[in-house]
Amino acid sequence: MAHPVVEFTSASSWAMIEDKFSDFGKETLAKLVQFVKDEVLPAERVAHAQIPTDPEQRWKVVIPVVQDLKVKAKKLGLWNLFLSKAHYPKYGVPLSNLEYAVMAEVLGRGGQMASEAVNCSAPDTGNMEVLARYGSPEQQKKWLEPLLNGEIRSAFSMTERFVSSSDATNIRTSIRQEGDEIVINGHKWWISGAGDPRCALHLVLGKSDPNNSDKYQQQSIVIVPSNAPGVKIVRPMKVFGYDDAPEGHCEVIYDNVRVPLSNLVLGWGKGFEIIQGRLGPGRIHHCMRSIGAAQMALDLMIQRVTDPSRKTFGKYLYQHGTVVADIAKSTAEIEGARLLVLSAAQQIDKFQAKGAMREIAIAKFVVPSMALQVVDRAIQAFGAEGVSQDQPISYAWAGLRTLRLADGPDAVHIQQVGQRELKRAPALTRRAAEIREKEKKLVEKYGLKGHL
Amino acid sequence: MAHPVVEFTSASSWAMIEDKFSDFGKETLAKLVQFVKDEVLPAERVAHAQIPTDPEQRWKVVIPVVQDLKVKAKKLGLWNLFLSKAHYPKYGVPLSNLEYAVMAEVLGRGGQMASEAVNCSAPDTGNMEVLARYGSPEQQKKWLEPLLNGEIRSAFSMTERFVSSSDATNIRTSIRQEGDEIVINGHKWWISGAGDPRCALHLVLGKSDPNNSDKYQQQSIVIVPSNAPGVKIVRPMKVFGYDDAPEGHCEVIYDNVRVPLSNLVLGWGKGFEIIQGRLGPGRIHHCMRSIGAAQMALDLMIQRVTDPSRKTFGKYLYQHGTVVADIAKSTAEIEGARLLVLSAAQQIDKFQAKGAMREIAIAKFVVPSMALQVVDRAIQAFGAEGVSQDQPISYAWAGLRTLRLADGPDAVHIQQVGQRELKRAPALTRRAAEIREKEKKLVEKYGLKGHL
Amino acid sequence: MAHPVVEFTSASSWAMIEDKFSDFGKETLAKLVQFVKDEVLPAERVAHAQIPTDPEQRWKVVIPVVQDLKVKAKKLGLWNLFLSKAHYPKYGVPLSNLEYAVMAEVLGRGGQMASEAVNCSAPDTGNMEVLARYGSPEQQKKWLEPLLNGEIRSAFSMTERFVSSSDATNIRTSIRQEGDEIVINGHKWWISGAGDPRCALHLVLGKSDPNNSDKYQQQSIVIVPSNAPGVKIVRPMKVFGYDDAPEGHCEVIYDNVRVPLSNLVLGWGKGFEIIQGRLGPGRIHHCMRSIGAAQMALDLMIQRVTDPSRKTFGKYLYQHGTVVADIAKSTAEIEGARLLVLSAAQQIDKFQAKGAMREIAIAKFVVPSMALQVVDRAIQAFGAEGVSQDQPISYAWAGLRTLRLADGPDAVHIQQVGQRELKRAPALTRRAAEIREKEKKLVEKYGLKGHL
Amino acid sequence: MAHPVVEFTSASSWAMIEDKFSDFGKETLAKLVQFVKDEVLPAERVAHAQIPTDPEQRWKVVIPVVQDLKVKAKKLGLWNLFLSKAHYPKYGVPLSNLEYAVMAEVLGRGGQMASEAVNCSAPDTGNMEVLARYGSPEQQKKWLEPLLNGEIRSAFSMTERFVSSSDATNIRTSIRQEGDEIVINGHKWWISGAGDPRCALHLVLGKSDPNNSDKYQQQSIVIVPSNAPGVKIVRPMKVFGYDDAPEGHCEVIYDNVRVPLSNLVLGWGKGFEIIQGRLGPGRIHHCMRSIGAAQMALDLMIQRVTDPSRKTFGKYLYQHGTVVADIAKSTAEIEGARLLVLSAAQQIDKFQAKGAMREIAIAKFVVPSMALQVVDRAIQAFGAEGVSQDQPISYAWAGLRTLRLADGPDAVHIQQVGQRELKRAPALTRRAAEIREKEKKLVEKYGLKGHL
Repeated sequence: MAHPVVEFTSASSWAMIEDKFSDFGKETLAKLVQFVKDEVLPAERVAHAQIPTDPEQRWKVVIPVVQDLKVKAKKLGLWNLFLSKAHYPKYGVPLSNLEYAVMAEVLGRGGQMASEAVNCSAPDTGNMEVLARYGSPEQQKKWLEPLLNGEIRSAFSMTERFVSSSDATNIRTSIRQEGDEIVINGHKWWISGAGDPRCALHLVLGKSDPNNSDKYQQQSIVIVPSNAPGVKIVRPMKVFGYDDAPEGHCEVIYDNVRVPLSNLVLGWGKGFEIIQGRLGPGRIHHCMRSIGAAQMALDLMIQRVTDPSRKTFGKYLYQHGTVVADIAKSTAEIEGARLLVLSAAQQIDKFQAKGAMREIAIAKFVVPSMALQVVDRAIQAFGAEGVSQDQPISYAWAGLRTLRLADGPDAVHIQQVGQRELKRAPALTRRAAEIREKEKKLVEKYGLKGHL
Repeated sequence: MAHPVVEFTSASSWAMIEDKFSDFGKETLAKLVQFVKDEVLPAERVAHAQIPTDPEQRWKVVIPVVQDLKVKAKKLGLWNLFLSKAHYPKYGVPLSNLEYAVMAEVLGRGGQMASEAVNCSAPDTGNMEVLARYGSPEQQKKWLEPLLNGEIRSAFSMTERFVSSSDATNIRTSIRQEGDEIVINGHKWWISGAGDPRCALHLVLGKSDPNNSDKYQQQSIVIVPSNAPGVKIVRPMKVFGYDDAPEGHCEVIYDNVRVPLSNLVLGWGKGFEIIQGRLGPGRIHHCMRSIGAAQMALDLMIQRVTDPSRKTFGKYLYQHGTVVADIAKSTAEIEGARLLVLSAAQQIDKFQAKGAMREIAIAKFVVPSMALQVVDRAIQAFGAEGVSQDQPISYAWAGLRTLRLADGPDAVHIQQVGQRELKRAPALTRRAAEIREKEKKLVEKYGLKGHL
Repeated sequence: MAHPVVEFTSASSWAMIEDKFSDFGKETLAKLVQFVKDEVLPAERVAHAQIPTDPEQRWKVVIPVVQDLKVKAKKLGLWNLFLSKAHYPKYGVPLSNLEYAVMAEVLGRGGQMASEAVNCSAPDTGNMEVLARYGSPEQQKKWLEPLLNGEIRSAFSMTERFVSSSDATNIRTSIRQEGDEIVINGHKWWISGAGDPRCALHLVLGKSDPNNSDKYQQQSIVIVPSNAPGVKIVRPMKVFGYDDAPEGHCEVIYDNVRVPLSNLVLGWGKGFEIIQGRLGPGRIHHCMRSIGAAQMALDLMIQRVTDPSRKTFGKYLYQHGTVVADIAKSTAEIEGARLLVLSAAQQIDKFQAKGAMREIAIAKFVVPSMALQVVDRAIQAFGAEGVSQDQPISYAWAGLRTLRLADGPDAVHIQQVGQRELKRAPALTRRAAEIREKEKKLVEKYGLKGHL
Repeated sequence: MAHPVVEFTSASSWAMIEDKFSDFGKETLAKLVQFVKDEVLPAERVAHAQIPTDPEQRWKVVIPVVQDLKVKAKKLGLWNLFLSKAHYPKYGVPLSNLEYAVMAEVLGRGGQMASEAVNCSAPDTGNMEVLARYGSPEQQKKWLEPLLNGEIRSAFSMTERFVSSSDATNIRTSIRQEGDEIVINGHKWWISGAGDPRCALHLVLGKSDPNNSDKYQQQSIVIVPSNAPGVKIVRPMKVFGYDDAPEGHCEVIYDNVRVPLSNLVLGWGKGFEIIQGRLGPGRIHHCMRSIGAAQMALDLMIQRVTDPSRKTFGKYLYQHGTVVADIAKSTAEIEGARLLVLSAAQQIDKFQAKGAMREIAIAKFVVPSMALQVVDRAIQAFGAEGVSQDQPISYAWAGLRTLRLADGPDAVHIQQVGQRELKRAPALTRRAAEIREKEKKLVEKYGLKGHL
């Protein structure tokens, strides 16, 4: 019998990877599919309804239905699935990146909430990885374990206002030691999760040694409790009108914030090293969730265009114009992108994130654009309703659009892949020369001098 | 000396049409450019700041700065520019559609507010055209004149919830006579402007004769005062997170609403005829404003990528990746689309909307997609800021996206243009046959039998 | 150590499938890579030089270097690799479709000649499959065995002039029994291989029972010796100026051709059944070769843009404009398409061609367009030389372009995939209804009535 | 009554420019339309049949039907239409660039032959412009007048093998004075027209002063009689399989060719100046012909998809898949591109080629890609026949593809437009600053400090 995940992905992509799944992986995946179908998807609109509309109150709520989902998920063992035991022996679960990739696709059908329900939502995931890998035992006890338990949430504070902080050397936030304290001053924005009432800590990137001749040693990361004096949430940034409450993406000012020395992560000057490690697999998580979002949008589109109550001029919507072709193209694009992400996940399993940089970068620039296109076609099929609050695709679109900017804009990944390809030039040129040498002999052998 | 509009459009497109402008047209255009630059653009963010954030209060405000702009504009004679005297001798201004098209592009740089400042904003424009063309003297006095004066606003109530009302035969709203009254029952949504405190009337389309064998005679339009008992504003529809307060696009229920017989427009069964006439030139207005929005986005992008404070890795943004190519493509796409719209406007002037259906339909499906693409590139250049409330391009994108759905989705216009082209087949086939006949003679003349 | 194929494909796609290869598969693949590098690629331009330019003589040559390659390949066991033992127990080689798919990519780097060298070139491959599956023992002995030995070649004669024969019911060629003979009359074109001096047989599709009420029982296929009286090669059809001599794609008239009854394949009325079976896996072969062609073009492009002798204005070509981005996009597109084809090949292995129709159709419409785009970018990088006889990419482009038309135009495959997706609608609608049911309970539980 | 050109272009684009045509322009255009319809189009396939297939003989023919067309055209006054009197008072005809642009579109429907029939074919047109503008009276008498009379033909010899000669500083051909002679040594290719038996002269660009510190003063141009000793036609370059006989695009070696000093054009070091002037308007000619080719392809596509004999599965081709949408998009793309070229032509008329560089560059990178896309859709509609010698669209495609490379590849024009746009940055930034200033005052006026 086919694995239940087939209903949520494609039989052929599953066939490509099924034998790379452990029994535990298959069972967990089956449970997750059931959980998403039975518990998460029915709760989606309920959760939105539980967020107050009042511009102040929206930021103070812990959504009841999501809290209840978390309890259920934990009981089912659907928890922290992103944290691969192979890479995090102490805290991890015995799942490979490939196995989690498929789970992330399943989660992607249910929006942010689905990931939160199984304690796999950004930015907590990356922060837990940082603390699991680089945190001191004390830091792990104080911050990592409550995060792993889903009791608190966290923010990652890197992006700065007024500069292009995608070049980390442009960072202006200052982190300096004063006695046995660290003092932080800086102006950040787009700090996801900082609005959440449960957010207990910010991992803050800043410059601790701005004059270091090695510009990748200038940065450090410190843990800042979100209730530390001087942490000011200025406002939520909006994404096409959405404020993403209660989590939000906030503008935050750190105004002479003081934390103990023990809150430094890994060591002085290690900030760049930490963010490099943090971003790799996380990009794949985003990508795989985006595949799920795209598939969800296509599924909705198929329902809409076959809905008899939507006929116009005596025909089903699918009988008009280019609808069938749009569906076919979306199918093919999702399928191709899905295989690319699975392939990247498998590379990470085999060669770590470092050995999968090409595949990660490809997925990073291919998948969000693909998903946006698929969702946009679905929007078009739904008419005005497609851009409204009555369908999840408008919100999905906005979220996907930010993925073309977050964790490095498309152009960065495109350039990286292109430059890497250019490095193949010497080997290619060498091979071409060898072939020309052999060709010469054939030219002689067949008496063709002057004919080529 | 070059006309001041050149700064806001392109010298070469202006050169194509300059000699089609009257002196009055040129002067008015020059005044408008000045007004937009000096008054409207500085007021744009001010206006947004004057809309309350409270979800109730947002719908009760008349934005002070916009009110002040209206007073100034009217004094300057920049008023009702859309209403061409050639088509509306009594109420119109002596401007052609082509002349207004260029003005609409200029207005398009300043968002919805710019159009409102000169009393040229939808849906009032279309409604004023309807009342000017089809209204009774009484209706004109009571409703049209205050609209023309900018004292009240209005809504056009056509789209229905739960059905595909782009096929007007699917309309379910009932309009029936009872004594000397008309009774209206129906469930509409996406009724733009219905949220505005100044909205005084809805033009409501419904079925008055649902069994008429001619399905284009089944519909009628009546004027419904927005304060009539039974008019219920259910909620604002959102466009990707935006509610577009205070105007909004509302869900509205008409529950046994009663209006006097004299509120019927033009006559029983004339609804379809009225909407046909209403939609033509209005589409061009949207298109031309979209050109302005796209040009605004490109201008912002150019500023951003040349901003020295945005350098990364030692280079200006424009020195990275495909930015220059993106700017070049945007330039070319705007220019081509602009000429298409100008050409459509000129067709309307020459042959009425009916004789310009091909050009209007082409503009309608080309322009919004083009503008979305240009704005999307600008968003990408701005990074996360591009999707936020800090730049007008995110809001512009959302508005443009609805234009691929409003007044007929893209597919309708594409099919219309394609079907119209297919009608050229007989003439083409005839010409091909004539050419083959002449070819035969040449074959004979040159002794080439059997060679073709 | 990495398998040598990695040099010709990508490490990550190889990692996805390596464990699906048998030892024999891996060894054969390694030998093939070596053979293509050492023998085929050096012979490519030599082979072209050995084709006479005289318009008559071009069709009489057996290319010496290709003949020599065939001898070598056979000796190495690189022979008939396409014929999977699993499907053809008597004549096949122990390779899966997936294994052959990778080999076909390798062969695709060397054009038509590479495939011929290992006796894997169309249309012989499909014809051998037909004869191996449906041929009588006598037919197999007389025609299949010499084909398997590479002693003769063959043509598949289906497409007709003047009608749209992609709809097989439009076929006009008549095949009728007269005593113990079959008489064939018809006008075909685009009969690939019919120009080759070694072409010994045509498999001809025609109507044997045009009035049969089941329109898929009207057709039959007969073996026509190419030297039978009445077989007239009218002319070679050209593909963008190329005549593809000596094989060609010929216009052929069958004028009262008579063959013995024993030349009927499978039985009367079995024509449609045979072509259905013939086309499936062959489409994947084409696709996989196209991946190889695209990768070859990209490799050439990388060499060109890094060539110091091609600098302009002091910069390498790759430092201009969008070259690096074009390379990155090509890389990603090849990679995604490659995974799609591998996935389709694996589906065929698991579920036969019938169970892989979705994946085959996706590959069929995605791959040729992708490859054309990649090759086109390479052409652009080469300047005018790119469209000329001095680079293989111009010829590759023309060949790839025909693949969007051959074996069903893109539109057929797109519609098929789209329609198949629409069949998921009832299951999707059912699931949505279940979710709504569960949602209702949650609404009740959390007291949210009226809020959704 | 509508002007007859409307049949060959669009009514709306004609409406945009009609009032810019002189009476002479309108009459000439009407005659040209008639001539193309009655004489040129019927002769198209005849001309191809009159070119021998023998690879030697193909280069020795003067096509009889084209010669006859030339006689007729000259008699009708349809001659040298490209040479605007405004710019070439002595030799020109009283037509503007805009007027000729429309004529070039009409000519573009008939391929290369149509232009030759009215003595408006490249590279003669550019060469005549050079000689008319820069030639000495002696040069004009000897070379220009026979060219203007259509008695001889010519070549422009710039592109070099082995280097990227799009950067003119890479040119290696040597031009040096020896006594009263000039000695030329160089290796060129893609020399269009050099294969023609009537080709009497080459304008050869080379380096006369390779060490000049001003690198745009290093080049000179000389007239080389094609029968001068040392002029060696090596081979025709092919464009996707086509050799374009009898004109061809030849590889040419100049081996110690000697010409009198009087063959120097304009003066030593003037080579770069001459080619700059030569290329501007010519690019527009190509573009406008391409519009005609695209429209021709669309017209053929419309005939094909409405042809009852091409029905499949009971439906016309246009009733399948995305055909109608493809036609609509092609229509819109042609229309937009046409307006761009007309606008560029008008700019040239107003401000010379120099003042129209933006518009020329836009047209140059937009039009060929657009036309390729339209022609490619037509090919797809024709099935295999579309890529063959039986339809003009395959040949048109190949020719159009070279236009993305000739006279500067796309990337050069794209970069030029993008860089030019970037120059608007200071003005835009200034305007933005002014707006912010005014905004500040409004913020104060309305008491909004801290709200923006």
